[in-house]
Amino acid sequence: MMMMAASASSSSSSSVAEVDQSSANLRPPASACDGWYGVAHGCTRKLGMKICGFLQKNNSLEEKSRMMGSFREKEQSHNRENREKETRFTRNETDFSNLFARDLLPAKNGEEPTMQFLLEIVEILTNYVRKTFDRSTKVLDFHHPHQLLEGIEGFNLELCDQPESLEQILVDCRDTLKYGVRTGHPRFFNQLSTGLDIIGLAGEWLTSTANTNMFTYEIAPVFVLMEQLTLKKMREIIGWPNGEGDGLFSPGGAISNMYSVMIARYKYFPEVKTKGMSAAPRLVLFTSEHSHYSIAKAGAALGFGKENVILLSTDQRGRVIPADLEAKIISAKQKGYVPLFVNATAGTTVYGAFDPINDIADICEKYNMWLHVDGAWGGSLLMSRKHRYKLNGVERANSVTWNPHKMMGVPLQCSAILVREKGILQGCNSMCAGYLFQPDKQYDVTYDTGDKAIQCGRHVDIFKFWLMWKAKGTVGFEQHVDRCLELSEYLYNKIKNREGYQMVFQGEPQHTNVCFWYVPPSMRNMPDGEERRERLHKVAPKIKAMMMECGSTMVGYQPQGDKVNFFRMVISNHAATKSDIDFLIEEIERLGQDL
Amino acid sequence: MMMMAASASSSSSSSVAEVDQSSANLRPPASACDGWYGVAHGCTRKLGMKICGFLQKNNSLEEKSRMMGSFREKEQSHNRENREKETRFTRNETDFSNLFARDLLPAKNGEEPTMQFLLEIVEILTNYVRKTFDRSTKVLDFHHPHQLLEGIEGFNLELCDQPESLEQILVDCRDTLKYGVRTGHPRFFNQLSTGLDIIGLAGEWLTSTANTNMFTYEIAPVFVLMEQLTLKKMREIIGWPNGEGDGLFSPGGAISNMYSVMIARYKYFPEVKTKGMSAAPRLVLFTSEHSHYSIAKAGAALGFGKENVILLSTDQRGRVIPADLEAKIISAKQKGYVPLFVNATAGTTVYGAFDPINDIADICEKYNMWLHVDGAWGGSLLMSRKHRYKLNGVERANSVTWNPHKMMGVPLQCSAILVREKGILQGCNSMCAGYLFQPDKQYDVTYDTGDKAIQCGRHVDIFKFWLMWKAKGTVGFEQHVDRCLELSEYLYNKIKNREGYQMVFQGEPQHTNVCFWYVPPSMRNMPDGEERRERLHKVAPKIKAMMMECGSTMVGYQPQGDKVNFFRMVISNHAATKSDIDFLIEEIERLGQDL
Repeated sequence: MMMMAASASSSSSSSVAEVDQSSANLRPPASACDGWYGVAHGCTRKLGMKICGFLQKNNSLEEKSRMMGSFREKEQSHNRENREKETRFTRNETDFSNLFARDLLPAKNGEEPTMQFLLEIVEILTNYVRKTFDRSTKVLDFHHPHQLLEGIEGFNLELCDQPESLEQILVDCRDTLKYGVRTGHPRFFNQLSTGLDIIGLAGEWLTSTANTNMFTYEIAPVFVLMEQLTLKKMREIIGWPNGEGDGLFSPGGAISNMYSVMIARYKYFPEVKTKGMSAAPRLVLFTSEHSHYSIAKAGAALGFGKENVILLSTDQRGRVIPADLEAKIISAKQKGYVPLFVNATAGTTVYGAFDPINDIADICEKYNMWLHVDGAWGGSLLMSRKHRYKLNGVERANSVTWNPHKMMGVPLQCSAILVREKGILQGCNSMCAGYLFQPDKQYDVTYDTGDKAIQCGRHVDIFKFWLMWKAKGTVGFEQHVDRCLELSEYLYNKIKNREGYQMVFQGEPQHTNVCFWYVPPSMRNMPDGEERRERLHKVAPKIKAMMMECGSTMVGYQPQGDKVNFFRMVISNHAATKSDIDFLIEEIERLGQDL
Repeated sequence: MMMMAASASSSSSSSVAEVDQSSANLRPPASACDGWYGVAHGCTRKLGMKICGFLQKNNSLEEKSRMMGSFREKEQSHNRENREKETRFTRNETDFSNLFARDLLPAKNGEEPTMQFLLEIVEILTNYVRKTFDRSTKVLDFHHPHQLLEGIEGFNLELCDQPESLEQILVDCRDTLKYGVRTGHPRFFNQLSTGLDIIGLAGEWLTSTANTNMFTYEIAPVFVLMEQLTLKKMREIIGWPNGEGDGLFSPGGAISNMYSVMIARYKYFPEVKTKGMSAAPRLVLFTSEHSHYSIAKAGAALGFGKENVILLSTDQRGRVIPADLEAKIISAKQKGYVPLFVNATAGTTVYGAFDPINDIADICEKYNMWLHVDGAWGGSLLMSRKHRYKLNGVERANSVTWNPHKMMGVPLQCSAILVREKGILQGCNSMCAGYLFQPDKQYDVTYDTGDKAIQCGRHVDIFKFWLMWKAKGTVGFEQHVDRCLELSEYLYNKIKNREGYQMVFQGEPQHTNVCFWYVPPSMRNMPDGEERRERLHKVAPKIKAMMMECGSTMVGYQPQGDKVNFFRMVISNHAATKSDIDFLIEEIERLGQDL
């Protein structure tokens, strides 16, 4: 039997009167015990009041008789008074081997197995969370694809016609985590998105429990408003007057960047929406050779063509050279092309470089072009009073991509496209689908966001971020950013003159990206030349492979331009400390010393 | 103090030896207690073995001395042996009013507050789940945007500079759910995506705990393989030989449909990727006037232009008339345009109509055009032996959109784009970003999926679906589909001759969409004409507004073509029963009788 212990409220007694009050409001008033219609305060308009009054008189008998259909429902009815309060569920030893998905809610008598199953899942997950932060666990337990496909240790990935027991489902859940990668581990440095934020995690759990869709206020009232308020706050931080403008959360930085190109085109050549690219002259986009590939991808997808995405030269730190931009604009114009759009990157993927936005904005103004700032990675530095100067001029951008799921530690996916001009997202993407966006709803339909998006259904990405902001405050994000940048400074200072290390670019990194070659002892006296390059190119992949096979840590590597493979260390993980940086360096040296 | 009770395994003892065995494998072997490197079986290659051997000799002292840095870490070290087993966490009465996000992991001594906080969140969520299935709760507690923005009952949506206590965060979570919409409620019929599947929910909780990214096998090995196997299974069910082909999970049906247009263009005019739309003749797309607006949106976004998306006429049931397609193709060719792509909808949004795929496929073959089947809503009928004939010919499509997050009850987001020809997704979208997709990794890099996508980071949408398939089997999905269609047949039979009801189209619906006008008594003797139309147009919005204000149930309405507002009932919710259908009809009549 499931044990339920009714308690007054699941939060403990509090000394803060205000909190107590709103906590109390969570419980429906006593009248709600008579049926779903009893909560009169939801009926705020005259019409609603009339109907609710009518229902209170006429419906409760009918409603109740419908309730009597089964023993289960009778039981519910009898227990309702207790159960209107929050119920505490306690795990017990349930035998899941004879239980199946069909035994869970909405099945009759499904409440007990449902609660026990969910609590068992939570047990697995909380254990995983705990171990994620424990440095004595491995970052990953590496296996090759063919090994996992063969069904390692009974972990069978194949799907079957017949259902598995819940016991097997629980085993599958454990195995899934066991053979995965702990992206929240203090020694996971492999991507721009790392770390496991507990508030963000709680936010995601709630989001998936609410399981709704951002397209209308109708079915996501709270989340739609949270999105609006959060986007406004982000626009204020960018520096747009009164936080005015528009925006959306999209499924990632690449899609956010794609939005920026679409709306730039719509701004200057709105007829393309109806007539296609043939209605416009040959349009050209500009972006740094160090920028994210999504700008070129957008150019290809949206019908500009990759060759009309002109790559800009950078200085040795990976920053766009403004004179090169202007020269290339002039050259394009001379060929009869129309320069439309410049992407300035705030925090490049590999070097973490910040393009000089003000200089680029001057050029965009001079040539009447759209300025987009891709701050997917570096936009979060706006939260830091110390580091935000690196984005000086961002308030002059027409649009900004900013991914809280990178430097701010928000769980994937959470990316915002922010637009200075109101209405342009709607104008660009609206198709006025009558079945979804009815103009004759009872509420202010300007809150329906769906017609601004290229998506129809849209996942709720806002709640975890909103909740983290509430829980940490703006200052909490600032501290996180400052701390990660301090750690990268520590790494930079540690290795810049260390034997066996060679920095990919000189000077302190602008973001947390520290790019370096590790040169094994056997190569340290080799003369520069093709042979050394070829050997050095293989060092990082070899060390990385050993790291992964042993599961000790993970860090990225790549070539860039004519530079052979080097390590790119990035820090966005709030669990990482100096000792983890030390560990990484010792690990590289230990694994690489005999190469 | 947190209570921890170590137990051998969190699943109860089982009689199935196989299950026990894989369960046992979840615990690291005893040697793992000496440090992260001890699990030798992860080091499967010679190189790995060599390194691991080296580490076992040299690293444990160093590793341990690093552990001694703090009391907390010492404690961890001492307790490790017990803690390698799964730990049971028990909720206790924690005072969250003096706890903040900064007190949670990775903070020192953060484990206890973290576990207590997460368990408190789970308490809130499990109570929500329980109430979701309880018909005595309301579907929603409606408020207007301005009411929620004003901070109703202390629920403050504004973000602040300073952090809030965890107690306030818990209150915010409760309020977020309180003012939201219970999309899993048995009487929520408002969207194509309804219902709260417990296995899917567990899958989402795990997904967000794993918090990783689909772009490489490197950091999502298990999920990448699950995606491959599941897509293959779906292609088998479509009927492509041996399940060959390609595919991806995308952030929704609109994006999946956009993919289909992109790859069709790439197939016939690959030079557009490089040179833009000016390299191709005027290309024309065809889709039903009843099809989803995402085809037109894709046409606008990708540079074809909305006017080159030709809408096809339908019969009175909303199915494309093949002769109309052929006539419009011929007409386009006569104008010198190039017919490129036909979208056949399997399950339209409003009528649930299935276009005749075989007839359309004949025409596509004749004119050498790409055939896409948008089965976002109706694709799931392929799981039903009884209903899959409605998609006859789907195996002749070049690409198929299929959203498990609609008719299969998988939590949002879960949409697949499936492609018959292998390699074309990669060819279309690849940009070969060196920093992410290194060719010199130690594993088979054909498993890296990122370069096929228009996204860079990609959320893990597969796990919940894979887990549901495991838990229900193919037969479980079949039963779900069949049951929903039976319920809609029940509704159709109930109202087709009922007084006050008028069907929007005649005959049994092909999908679960039942479209009807409710005609209030005062209008039943009105002659047909503009006045009646105008009045009837207002009936559904008024009833819907009252439903929402009272929170009793939710169902969609919309106009379509020259038809005034009508109700579109859809059933995808596994919690719905005949009694809920009865309730809906009684509710419409009760609310509408005085209009």
